[in-house]
This record gives sequence, C-alpha cells and structure tokens, in this order.
Amino acid sequence: MTGHFFEGAEKLLEIWFATSASSTAKYLPRNDLRNIPRDIIEEVLNLVNCKVLQYAQSATTDTYVLSESSMFIFRTHFVLKTCGETTLLHAVQPILELARDYCDFDVVDQVFYSRRKFLRPELQKAPHTSFDHEVAYLDSLFEGGSAYVLGRTNVDCWYLYTLDKTCVHAKTDQTLEIIMTDLDRDKMKIFYQEHTSSVAEATKKAGIDKIFPNARIFDYLFDPCGYSMNGLLPDGHYFTIHITPEPDFSYVSFETNVPYQQYNDVIRKVVALFNPGKFTTTIFGGTASTSLDMHRKLFLYSDYDRIDHQVVCLVDYDLIYSYYKKHPS
Amino acid sequence: MTGHFFEGAEKLLEIWFATSASSTAKYLPRNDLRNIPRDIIEEVLNLVNCKVLQYAQSATTDTYVLSESSMFIFRTHFVLKTCGETTLLHAVQPILELARDYCDFDVVDQVFYSRRKFLRPELQKAPHTSFDHEVAYLDSLFEGGSAYVLGRTNVDCWYLYTLDKTCVHAKTDQTLEIIMTDLDRDKMKIFYQEHTSSVAEATKKAGIDKIFPNARIFDYLFDPCGYSMNGLLPDGHYFTIHITPEPDFSYVSFETNVPYQQYNDVIRKVVALFNPGKFTTTIFGGTASTSLDMHRKLFLYSDYDRIDHQVVCLVDYDLIYSYYKKHPS
Repeated sequence: MTGHFFEGAEKLLEIWFATSASSTAKYLPRNDLRNIPRDIIEEVLNLVNCKVLQYAQSATTDTYVLSESSMFIFRTHFVLKTCGETTLLHAVQPILELARDYCDFDVVDQVFYSRRKFLRPELQKAPHTSFDHEVAYLDSLFEGGSAYVLGRTNVDCWYLYTLDKTCVHAKTDQTLEIIMTDLDRDKMKIFYQEHTSSVAEATKKAGIDKIFPNARIFDYLFDPCGYSMNGLLPDGHYFTIHITPEPDFSYVSFETNVPYQQYNDVIRKVVALFNPGKFTTTIFGGTASTSLDMHRKLFLYSDYDRIDHQVVCLVDYDLIYSYYKKHPS
Repeated sequence: MTGHFFEGAEKLLEIWFATSASSTAKYLPRNDLRNIPRDIIEEVLNLVNCKVLQYAQSATTDTYVLSESSMFIFRTHFVLKTCGETTLLHAVQPILELARDYCDFDVVDQVFYSRRKFLRPELQKAPHTSFDHEVAYLDSLFEGGSAYVLGRTNVDCWYLYTLDKTCVHAKTDQTLEIIMTDLDRDKMKIFYQEHTSSVAEATKKAGIDKIFPNARIFDYLFDPCGYSMNGLLPDGHYFTIHITPEPDFSYVSFETNVPYQQYNDVIRKVVALFNPGKFTTTIFGGTASTSLDMHRKLFLYSDYDRIDHQVVCLVDYDLIYSYYKKHPS
C-alpha cells in the first residue's frame, strides 16, 4: 500500500530566443513571444498535463498561475515551471515551432533546464524518469547541450542542462532559486484550506506580501492544501513561490530574477518566513558581477551550516550552488 | 567483431588513517602503513587483478609500479591507482582491516575515490560498471560519503567520492591530476617497443626526466606498448605518469602531490610534453591557499580553451576541476 504523495520538486525550463536577421536586438513588434495566441499556449500546456488557473499582464510580462506551478512569458524568453508528474519537456518542440511561426524567432539564444533530484523518480513519466533520459531528449533537440550535476548524487542534488554558447540576450539576466525541504509544520498549516479561509489570508499570514512590498501578487490556494503565487515587479522582474505543505514530503520553492545584489537579503527573508530544515540556493549571475571569494564568505546564514558550496563557470554566467542544513538544536 | 581496446582511465583511491588514541599526531612506530608485510599487500593486489612490477623505498614512501598503474604507501595514507578492468574497490575492506591489525589505525581520516568517465563502462567488472554502483559499494563501508560529478555528464566527466568530515592529517596534503586524451600521435610512438629500445630511452625521449629533475624515477615500458612511471621527490612528494598510446583510445594521466604553488607551471610543462587534444585538471588544495578568483584568471594555457571550470568547496579542501580543449587550428 502506498500513501498519498505529491512530488513538489519542479522541472524548470527557460528558453531565450533571438532572430538571425537582427542579432543586435532591434526587434520588430512581431518578434515577441507574447504574440502567441492564448488558446495555442493552452494546447501546449495540455501536452505537459497542466492547466491555466490565473492569467495577468504587465507591460513586460504575461504571468500564468498553473494547476502545477507557473509560467512567465516575456518578449524574448519564457519561464515554465511545473511540478508533480507533469511532462514539461513535451512542451519544448512545440514552443520552438511557435516561436518561429508566430514571432520569427529562428535562433535559440539559450536554454536552461533544471530540477532537484526527485523524491520518487519511479512515479515520473518519460522522459522525466531519470536525468540521463531528459538529457538524451534535450540532446535530440539542441546542439551543444551541457549536462551538469550539482550537489551530492547520493544525498541530494540538482541537475542542469544548458547550451555551451555565447548568448545574445540571456546574459543580461540573473536568477535566484531557493528550494526548501523539511519545512516548519506550523508555518505549513497556513497552506491548508481547513486552517486558512482565503488565499489572500494565506499570503498575508505567511508574510509573502512583505518579501517585495511593491509586487502585484497573483496567488492560489489549492483544495485541500497547497499554494502557488506569481509576483510582478517593475522592469520585468518577477518572483514565484510554490508550496507543498504535507509534512511527509513538504517542499517550498522560491524563484526570482531581481538583481544579484539583492540575493543575500532575499535569501535571509525567505528562509526566515518558511524556516526549512534544509535548503539549497542556485544563483545564475553574470560573470562580471560575481566574486567567487566574496560569495564564499558572504552567503552564510545563522542557524544553518553550509554543507555544500559549488561553482560552475559557464560561458556567460557563474552558477553558484549551495546546500544548507539547520544546526542540530 | 570488436577491435582491441584498453581502458586507460584509472580508478584512483587514497585513504588516510589516524588512531583514536592519539589524534594529535604523536604516532608510535607501530602506526605506519609500511609495516604491512609485502606478501600481504600482494594478496590484496590480487583481489584488484594487478601485480607488482617494481618496488622501491625512500625515507617517507614505498612506491610500486603495477601491471596496471601504481601504488604509493606513506606512513598514514596510501594511493592506489589502477587502470583497465581492475577491481580496485575490492581492496578497500582488506586495507581497512590491515591498517587496523598491523598499524593500530582504527580511524579513517579521509577517503578519496575518483575516476574519469569510462570510454567503455560495459567492459568493467562490478562494482565498477557505473558510478552509482561504486557509490553504493563505498556507502556500505563508510559513513558520511559524498558523491560528486564534475564536468558534463553527456560529454566528459569526472567522479569523486569523499567523506564529509574534518580531517586530522589529510588536509595538509594537496594533489594535482592531469588527464589527457586525443594525444599527439608522434609523441605516443615513443611508448611502443618497436620504436624505442628501452624504458630509459622512452623516459628521456619524452622529456619525462625533465619535469622534476631531482626525482628518482621508476619506469616501465610494456610489450608491445604502454608506459608507467613513479617518481620520488624529497619530503614525501611524488609524481606518476601512465600512458596508453594507442591512437583509437590514447590516454595519459599525470598525478603529483607537490605544493599547489607549482601547479600552474607543472601543468604547462606536462601539456607541452604530451600535446593532448583535450585535458582535464583536478586540483585539491587547502582552502586557505586558494583564491577562487585568482584561480579563474590564472590557470589558462595558450592553444587551449577552458571549456569547463568548476569549484567544489569541501570541508578541508577546495576541489577545482577544469576541462581544456585545443583551439581548432
């Protein structure tokens, strides 16, 4: 007999596009991923096995809260993050075709596919049953793919697939992801409908509205439990949080593309809100902005030991992976 | 039909010992791995499927040239490196027992097991058929083992298993390994008996005697081809080179424990001698001595692009992995 289980760990895909005609970023109005019609987007999400729950727009960003996590669509790139037993990689080929057909984007500028090691990989559907299978699938679609494993393969690790190439646009970006497990049981109660009457109340009780006070928040409380939110910030910045509160497999993810300089503070705030037993941070920063020696000294948090600290110097990015564990108290 | 093949890539094991009685390094004469009788050592090597070809001693070091690579035994640690289809991990349990029975070493201070991705993993014998199997085997013998993958899993990568603990003695050490593939065909001809009449001539023609001019060299030229050497240097330092010269699967490894400050020069010299199409360097250095930012700027070599550069900050060490590829000319 197997009990109730949900794989909170998301598959995370980010693809950046360019045109071979104008590599110096003078785009035509047609060169915009937000031109892809909404019903076509929903068809692609059907292939992934998830549905749109909420949709909103800002000047820079289309944001979707999904039945399994989130999507953000920008002019030249999109972010698709899906949890559970979704088949995210089935979206890749259709998206490449749509970007070409609707937006004249004929160049893939950069790809990032990443995820944490699954708790129960045997429940996943192909090609997500192992990282090797995912890599083979991506290698069939892209040239120059590079597959990395960060962390400890026999304890907890995080996988990344990206392209070994110089980017036109992607390199102006940066991303922080915080993946938290063994969460505070009392804090997780907030994300059960039996304890919290509305999603707005959950967002407020948890303090999520305080992380970036100037955000427009789109949030969703699942029945009987679980929580998702997308936050839109000025200048094309966003953040997104997904919560699987069940004690046996509790999982919270936080992701943002606000500038690198804020990451130490943001990590401190987010970890204080959720009080995880363990968490990993993955940071993609431009190579110019990161001092590896500084990073090693600075990104330390009271109550936590940094168990792992790894750096991968990619062509346009430094990727910094850290794994933290609460002190035995 | 399958042609002739030899897996040059070595399995590399280093184990450091201590005693629970005297953790402050006041050892008795009995606490010395070199006390283990030679015939018992040879029995352990039988389990690995290799034989002793040459043996020599210095004040600090027992050195063995093996039918498949090399062994070094020091007072509190040993280095065993074996290539081909040897079953190196079968030596671990016997060595732990011998260290306890003959030397009163009842504490494993640190373990490093590493290897490059095999060209033909399907030819290996258990538990070496996959890194996951090797890790499971080591996890059955040690507490707190941490398994890492450096490099690109879908291109070329390097595996490491080590213990997550503070060491008593191991941290005073440092190691450089250079793993070279796609080697210069003319240089590799030196290591065929049909082209070179003696091992001394091979060592001289290749310039191996010039790397550390003050070394005592123990070298061996295989029939019909292949080469191994161990070099002893003052203060317990050593270097060792192993060469598989066949063009279809050419492979050269270089390893030394001379101080970190020499590594940039040593790499330059060794790469000039063998002129590989690709090479990786793995460096274990004390965390105090390495500036990650300096390392990133300094360890660059003309004629080669650094394709990958990764850092793993371990408890007592920084591990730095770099992968270099010759410019297309």
